[in-house]
Amino acid sequence: MSKSGYSDTDLLAINTIRTLAIDATFKANSGHPGAPMGMAPVAHVLFNKFMTFNPKNPSWLNRDRFVLSNGHGCMLQYALLHLFGYAVTLDDLKNFRQVDSITPGHPEAHDTPGVEVTSGPLGQGFANAVGLAIAQAHTAAIYNKPGFDLVNNHTYMFFGDGCAMEGIASEAASTAGHLQLGNLIAIYDDNHISIDGDTKCAFTEDVTKRFEAYGWHVQWVKDGDNDLKGIEEAIAKAKEVKDKPSMIRLTTTIGFGSKLQGTGGVHGNPLKEDDAKQVKKKFGFDPEKSFVVPQEVYDMYHKHAAEGAAAEQEWNQLLEKYAGEHKELGADLKRRLTGKLPEGWQNKLPVYKPSDSAIASRKLSESVLEAIHDAVPELLSGSADLTGSNNTRWKSAVDFQPPSTGIGEWSGRYLRYGVREHSMAGIMNGLSAYGTIIPAGGTFLNFVSYAAGSVRLSALSHQRVIYIATHDSIGLGEDGPTHQPIETLAHFRALPNFMVWRPADGNETSAAYYVALTSQSTPSLLALTRQNLPQLEGSTIEKGIKGGYTVLETEGAQITLVSTGSEVSLCLEAAKYLEANNGLKARVVSLPCMEVFDAQPKDYRLSVIPDGIPSLSVEVMSTLGWEKYSHEQFGLNRFGASGPYKDVYKKFEFTPEGIAKRAVATVDFYKDVKPLRSPLQRAFLQLI
Amino acid sequence: MSKSGYSDTDLLAINTIRTLAIDATFKANSGHPGAPMGMAPVAHVLFNKFMTFNPKNPSWLNRDRFVLSNGHGCMLQYALLHLFGYAVTLDDLKNFRQVDSITPGHPEAHDTPGVEVTSGPLGQGFANAVGLAIAQAHTAAIYNKPGFDLVNNHTYMFFGDGCAMEGIASEAASTAGHLQLGNLIAIYDDNHISIDGDTKCAFTEDVTKRFEAYGWHVQWVKDGDNDLKGIEEAIAKAKEVKDKPSMIRLTTTIGFGSKLQGTGGVHGNPLKEDDAKQVKKKFGFDPEKSFVVPQEVYDMYHKHAAEGAAAEQEWNQLLEKYAGEHKELGADLKRRLTGKLPEGWQNKLPVYKPSDSAIASRKLSESVLEAIHDAVPELLSGSADLTGSNNTRWKSAVDFQPPSTGIGEWSGRYLRYGVREHSMAGIMNGLSAYGTIIPAGGTFLNFVSYAAGSVRLSALSHQRVIYIATHDSIGLGEDGPTHQPIETLAHFRALPNFMVWRPADGNETSAAYYVALTSQSTPSLLALTRQNLPQLEGSTIEKGIKGGYTVLETEGAQITLVSTGSEVSLCLEAAKYLEANNGLKARVVSLPCMEVFDAQPKDYRLSVIPDGIPSLSVEVMSTLGWEKYSHEQFGLNRFGASGPYKDVYKKFEFTPEGIAKRAVATVDFYKDVKPLRSPLQRAFLQLI
Repeated sequence: MSKSGYSDTDLLAINTIRTLAIDATFKANSGHPGAPMGMAPVAHVLFNKFMTFNPKNPSWLNRDRFVLSNGHGCMLQYALLHLFGYAVTLDDLKNFRQVDSITPGHPEAHDTPGVEVTSGPLGQGFANAVGLAIAQAHTAAIYNKPGFDLVNNHTYMFFGDGCAMEGIASEAASTAGHLQLGNLIAIYDDNHISIDGDTKCAFTEDVTKRFEAYGWHVQWVKDGDNDLKGIEEAIAKAKEVKDKPSMIRLTTTIGFGSKLQGTGGVHGNPLKEDDAKQVKKKFGFDPEKSFVVPQEVYDMYHKHAAEGAAAEQEWNQLLEKYAGEHKELGADLKRRLTGKLPEGWQNKLPVYKPSDSAIASRKLSESVLEAIHDAVPELLSGSADLTGSNNTRWKSAVDFQPPSTGIGEWSGRYLRYGVREHSMAGIMNGLSAYGTIIPAGGTFLNFVSYAAGSVRLSALSHQRVIYIATHDSIGLGEDGPTHQPIETLAHFRALPNFMVWRPADGNETSAAYYVALTSQSTPSLLALTRQNLPQLEGSTIEKGIKGGYTVLETEGAQITLVSTGSEVSLCLEAAKYLEANNGLKARVVSLPCMEVFDAQPKDYRLSVIPDGIPSLSVEVMSTLGWEKYSHEQFGLNRFGASGPYKDVYKKFEFTPEGIAKRAVATVDFYKDVKPLRSPLQRAFLQLI
Repeated sequence: MSKSGYSDTDLLAINTIRTLAIDATFKANSGHPGAPMGMAPVAHVLFNKFMTFNPKNPSWLNRDRFVLSNGHGCMLQYALLHLFGYAVTLDDLKNFRQVDSITPGHPEAHDTPGVEVTSGPLGQGFANAVGLAIAQAHTAAIYNKPGFDLVNNHTYMFFGDGCAMEGIASEAASTAGHLQLGNLIAIYDDNHISIDGDTKCAFTEDVTKRFEAYGWHVQWVKDGDNDLKGIEEAIAKAKEVKDKPSMIRLTTTIGFGSKLQGTGGVHGNPLKEDDAKQVKKKFGFDPEKSFVVPQEVYDMYHKHAAEGAAAEQEWNQLLEKYAGEHKELGADLKRRLTGKLPEGWQNKLPVYKPSDSAIASRKLSESVLEAIHDAVPELLSGSADLTGSNNTRWKSAVDFQPPSTGIGEWSGRYLRYGVREHSMAGIMNGLSAYGTIIPAGGTFLNFVSYAAGSVRLSALSHQRVIYIATHDSIGLGEDGPTHQPIETLAHFRALPNFMVWRPADGNETSAAYYVALTSQSTPSLLALTRQNLPQLEGSTIEKGIKGGYTVLETEGAQITLVSTGSEVSLCLEAAKYLEANNGLKARVVSLPCMEVFDAQPKDYRLSVIPDGIPSLSVEVMSTLGWEKYSHEQFGLNRFGASGPYKDVYKKFEFTPEGIAKRAVATVDFYKDVKPLRSPLQRAFLQLI
């Protein structure tokens, strides 16, 4: 081993990480020892020589960020967290991959102190890291002042061949290159092994050249197993490159030390007992002992941790001084770090009267952004190349761009994500995880599906991310079935810890933003129309934020029509039609957000969808899931059609007459059922 | 205009395409004139000088394939189809983007004669084209013999900046380069405009270099507006490159001829009336007339069409001769083209007895593939780098690889897609569209979500594609919540024309394959377990193919337990538990495929989930949608947990006791309701 500048303790530390990964996966009888064993050297160098962090305060703003995009190698990260003194004990390592442990099978941000983002689904961490780097550049541009280099951390990210193959990583890499993110350093574990074995079976592209094409600075360290000095020099050089993200291709041996090193056999399976023993022996560890950490390794890592703690203390003093000299900015930064919005911001939300004109909810959303962007400076909007259609940009917005492009600034609050929905979502997760930004990003509702992998992680990792999803139904008209969502809302309504909003008018759109922005650990999707919607009689922001409410109460009502978005006003027309043509009295309920409605007290919910009369849901897409709120469902369980939207609505009978026909059938069908309970009445509570 | 070798009629034809696009979008008051106007020259050269096809028989096997990945430019394709004499009339062009026309807002394969694949969602066509090219190479390797160059078509694909940004196109491009697909020629409309305007705001990478990094042959034609000769030479040269896919970067002016040419203003909006007039005047057309096709243009195009018809006739004779000399292969090819499977293939499907051992359904799926792969030679399996986990590869399988790699053959029937779920699905859509292959591809169920954009198009475009989705629930255990699907089945159950199967044992797994393989225009997803499942008493393939059936009938039953997959055997245990501990009689239903069950006669369905007693569904994921088949639902509307799967099941009470508790509550809750109808009883029929 070439150890120039490195001591035996360094080597011991590296091998401690390796043996901890061997022991934890062996004990769990599950997990991935290969990547930790191969990447222990670079992790050791990176964390000890370059990264600044305080294990006692994992949320310190200016810490360097670390993302393990190849999250299956999480024992590498858990071992590091333990060695540096984060609140991850040796017992936690022994509980690797056990129920209710803080060391799950893949890193989860809200479970484990020191884990920045939730990774493992390949490519996600890559996009998250790009988001963290953007957030740093943006936050620095807002707050740094002469003499106050307050925000200057780096983002370091490990990724493997699997991430390199994923489209989301390609998208995010192209964006990072375009944005010249000099604060981002990615280390590519070039070990030539994925689950199917040698990468030669599916992955023979020139990765170096590809990253250069994206505008990255690329280096190659050919002996990642041993060349600590070379690793150190490469990272140092990467830090010097300020106008490009850096990728260091690090050729390593997966499962270094194992009898199966360099093969797929050591990727996703624990080492066999005899193999584990021979590795330990080779590394100078007692083959009969497990979970061994030599004291000098603790000492070395704790010393670095103490330096980090001191750095934070110094920074805290700098922040106090800053807050004295830059009162407004200082207070603003401190507030952002609490996650709370500025006082009174909600008074800026637009309020509408029934006499106000009919407006598409994508335009209503734009009006909200226009109204609140000054009051909520942490809001950072953007779109996946549909700015004019998503209406995501307020008039005075400045693009987030490298100033050298001449088309924006680092302090800009509008991100041009390109036609890259998946990485937009992954980047937004990183932006949110940074701690000073609330990201909102737009695309057509139908193409949020492209981003499903990241949307799921917004929810799982509790990120306050807002998906602005316009053109939300067959109401988009001419673009046709390829662009008309049918299954999309059902999909995201089934996702835990996720709010799907489909506002019916201006007040409901304001309500959606209110709840989305104040829900610190739940992401939201706002499904918005292309077509105009009238302002409802009886809607208010206060009612809207309950997720569901009665729009039209009718004495002696024989049926409840339950609806969302563009169909609520249609149901109001249907109620009139029913009374005039069928002598049938209907009440109308708007249910803009099922998840929020579900959280209301039962009494309230039953006042909205009461016992005693049947209910019919009306929404121009899949009926799946509506049975929870209605006895019968009128929807579209087939693909739509290309044509002017009014023609399309008519084709599928979404007209007052079409609704009335089904309402009559519903009343008739349930007339003999006793007791006729509200669909909200359940026999037992769901696990949550 | 440099016209060396090109006549005024060529120019007239190009301008006819342009004016048709102008007129159709103007009349529809909607659509994208810019791309057709910019790409008309290359389309003219490609279709007339290089492509062989017979408009009278759009399904001729050896036709050259054309894919418009930038599908919003579909008026380009519709105009070509009309001019060449496909069954697309001038009236059809006048009905562009109208309800029930055959010229929808984006190309739809099953709607319009001559449209190969459904594109428009960006990047999809790119992946489809890679699939079509793979299919050609594979089919040629199977059938071509000395003297019979039966299958030798090319696949041509247009893509724009939007596609180039999408991750799915990056994934597919890397795969195409690895596979050395010399039969694939892609033309990149390098017009520097996307919806947000100049691509400099988000897309500044070096596309040429990136494609070279993937292993493509790249050329650049700098004047795509005028240089017909240059275009022709580039395509000719690309055809000469046999061991690499080709990309021709074609710099064009979007909306060529418009006053707004070269700007975003002409991308997604019809030209203003005065602009349309000045373009027509400039091109020598009468500005007052619309939808004009000069007779010499028809003549030129019909001449080429006639050559194509003659080529097909010649080919048909070749096929007959081939069928005489290579009887078995000839008959096999003819059979494949009908879409029907070989007679008797289904007799190979494995059948199980209750005494057979417990086996994971991913292994049961492997047994099906092992049993039928000889009998169903069009089956082409693969995996997104999870071969050993998805169990998608039969023992004797040969990889589809360029022979020069030394690890496979063009005739190989196993595709290594790499860690690229989205392009796997998009490629499978192309494989299926070719006409001689039934593709099946594996990943974890949770990561089918990465492919949602393409899965949707499998359904919309009626492709017989099989998604082998293993590790289908919290039952995957230790990998944890990042890998445990909760919302996934609800998502795909809400997708029209799509079958979601979750078999409970071996017979049901065979049934799932039976229906998946024999449904010629519906894709399927098979959700399969990691953990072992017992063989059920009372399951048969015949029952399974009904999508739902009674596993356990019980006289005097007080409740129906409805379940799928791994939870069916748990429900059988719960039924015993209920009788022993609660004196309650339960019947048990397995519902492996809701979509197929829905298609059964009502009498049958009501015999499975009858009136008179309540029903409780049991499935370890989102309950969304289960209300359609049960009065009460036991599921998991939260994220899972990392741990051994039995511990995870226990944590969430998915045990006989946990089910029994909820069954008791359900019976109690419904005891007074009269009449207690089956949830299958509905007030009115859904639109389908």
